Amino acid sequence: MKKERYNVAVAGATGAVGNEMVSILEERNFPVDKLKLLASTRGAGTKMEFKGKSYTVEVMDENSFTGMDVGLFSPGGSVSQKFAPVAGRAGCVVIDNTSAFRMDPDVPLVVPEVNPHAVAQYAKRNIIANPNCSTIQMVVALKPIHDVARIKRIVVSTYQSVSGTGKRAIRELESQTLAIYNQQEVKREVYPHQIAFNCLPHIDVFLPNGYTKEEMKMVNETRKIMEDDSIRVTATTVRVPVFYAHSEAVNIETEKKLTADEVRKIRNERN
Amino acid sequence: MKKERYNVAVAGATGAVGNEMVSILEERNFPVDKLKLLASTRGAGTKMEFKGKSYTVEVMDENSFTGMDVGLFSPGGSVSQKFAPVAGRAGCVVIDNTSAFRMDPDVPLVVPEVNPHAVAQYAKRNIIANPNCSTIQMVVALKPIHDVARIKRIVVSTYQSVSGTGKRAIRELESQTLAIYNQQEVKREVYPHQIAFNCLPHIDVFLPNGYTKEEMKMVNETRKIMEDDSIRVTATTVRVPVFYAHSEAVNIETEKKLTADEVRKIRNERN
Repeated sequence: MKKERYNVAVAGATGAVGNEMVSILEERNFPVDKLKLLASTRGAGTKMEFKGKSYTVEVMDENSFTGMDVGLFSPGGSVSQKFAPVAGRAGCVVIDNTSAFRMDPDVPLVVPEVNPHAVAQYAKRNIIANPNCSTIQMVVALKPIHDVARIKRIVVSTYQSVSGTGKRAIRELESQTLAIYNQQEVKREVYPHQIAFNCLPHIDVFLPNGYTKEEMKMVNETRKIMEDDSIRVTATTVRVPVFYAHSEAVNIETEKKLTADEVRKIRNERN
Repeated sequence: MKKERYNVAVAGATGAVGNEMVSILEERNFPVDKLKLLASTRGAGTKMEFKGKSYTVEVMDENSFTGMDVGLFSPGGSVSQKFAPVAGRAGCVVIDNTSAFRMDPDVPLVVPEVNPHAVAQYAKRNIIANPNCSTIQMVVALKPIHDVARIKRIVVSTYQSVSGTGKRAIRELESQTLAIYNQQEVKREVYPHQIAFNCLPHIDVFLPNGYTKEEMKMVNETRKIMEDDSIRVTATTVRVPVFYAHSEAVNIETEKKLTADEVRKIRNERN
């Protein structure tokens, strides 16, 4: 479907990720023909700018994707679950940022720096899934090492910013911090505990196995992207009082022994 | 040296740890006879309260410990290095919070919940060392597991508050955060980078092996306290924008296989 210009729909345009996607389309000068900004009822009617032109965000419905080429989705899992297949059937190729289709065997889970070849499998459902933020940054660092020495085991601890939760969480860190300085009551809406000046080892819900859903995403998505189900992964995911950018401490065991210097060399060769 | 009441010297009384030690002596109603508050020149002259009575902090010198029974030290490594042996030779038993004597084979390194028996070896130098804060909390959790199943390997990532650096660091987090809210310049004095709304994987100095000194403290002190040099330990120590209380994500490998439920049972039996 190579074209001169593409009709692009952004689903969840008013969210933190949607905002960023629109501004990157502009920054990269992506060849957009028609742009459609979509949201569930809450965000509809909002005005947004793209290349100096004002757009009104529309309510997403069954007909939103007719004639669109590419759908950039970050509307939350349940909305993607409903509308990504609708878009796909209408011939609009969805790139989905939610967790809805990541483990679907008919949907490729792609990090361009790691497994770009997997994109070729998009046609079954016209959906390409994007991994969890904490998985992406880890596999980008690990893939070159895996190629040389085969990674057997990963122990990862994360330091994840509130931006990963979305706009309301960014405001919660901001307002809780301010409340502390003003000796006012700290109100909790997004997180179960205070996030200002605090760390929460609790991202997404806890599962019966004792891990959180976020932690199991790191386990399962890593295996799918690295195309190796034998890699053992354990993760402790922690929210920290930082606005933007995630960090991780990653310990790996490789089949072939490598020194730290050899690992640095592999990394530099890739860059 | 069992006594009804003890003469107690607090060295580094004006620091964050010294303050806390004086207030815990009061809170526990420790049988203090004479109390002497000591500091290097910077803190001398400060007034401090103990059980409703005002004390003036004195300059520490060669004669400060004559007639004292117990010395609680947290004046910084180089001051301890100089004055703890002076106190010890004067018959004052030093409990040292700095890193100065931790790895000295003639000084026991003690966590009361883990290796209380080691205290018996104090008499060689009259010094008992206290481990690094991040080591203490880890070995308290791990010792009961080690006793049952022998720990072979530890992978730890820390989330350490600014209180571990001391009073000036607490003020730096406070003032940097305020500067950001007031759109003023963020000033750095204690940490090499901004700590407000940021994480720094850099505690103490970097060593030639690529680890920081804080990380190697966790490796070496853990082995000494657990009395097992065969335990393999790797640590990533990270400062987080939290005022008080350290956290850690600890992954362990044991010789004897244990389920998570068995580990919880061991912990509960100990409590």
